[in-house]
Amino acid sequence: MDERWYVVAYDIPDTRRREALAAWLEGWGERVQRSVFEFELRPAEFARMLAGIRTRIDPAADQVRVYHLGARGYRSIEVPAGPPARPRPRWFIV
Amino acid sequence: MDERWYVVAYDIPDTRRREALAAWLEGWGERVQRSVFEFELRPAEFARMLAGIRTRIDPAADQVRVYHLGARGYRSIEVPAGPPARPRPRWFIV
Repeated sequence: MDERWYVVAYDIPDTRRREALAAWLEGWGERVQRSVFEFELRPAEFARMLAGIRTRIDPAADQVRVYHLGARGYRSIEVPAGPPARPRPRWFIV
Repeated sequence: MDERWYVVAYDIPDTRRREALAAWLEGWGERVQRSVFEFELRPAEFARMLAGIRTRIDPAADQVRVYHLGARGYRSIEVPAGPPARPRPRWFIV
């Protein structure tokens, strides 16, 4: 079990780029807010997911932050409002 | 030095509630995206900040997630696009 948890949050003004990134991220984890995704991935999977982020954004125009939550994962997520964080089934189409 | 790092991300449809929450959070940390803030706080400060979030949101309509990054703090933040994460000066008006 070497999965780690990650969060990606983004502000992307261009609709096409924003939707392309969301489509990419949906193949790796769960959308928990309009522009926030949570992931439970092995390091190699995370590296591939991150590489795909970099090819889909414009660093001059976009804002993208990746938070490493480590192995504590969903236990380090507090939800004052919205669906609780929970371990994720290991299926996704990539 | 018992500060820890936290991230708050939110989706709040009601403009007045959204702006009230943002104003509250700006007194505690740094806005890094439209609806994402980063904080470096002591546990007691975090508890007060979180209590203030709970009084300003509608759990039935809003989405608010709090990520505990722990002591590793800004070193667990990767920024493919946008201003780099960095230690924060310890001043804010509360």
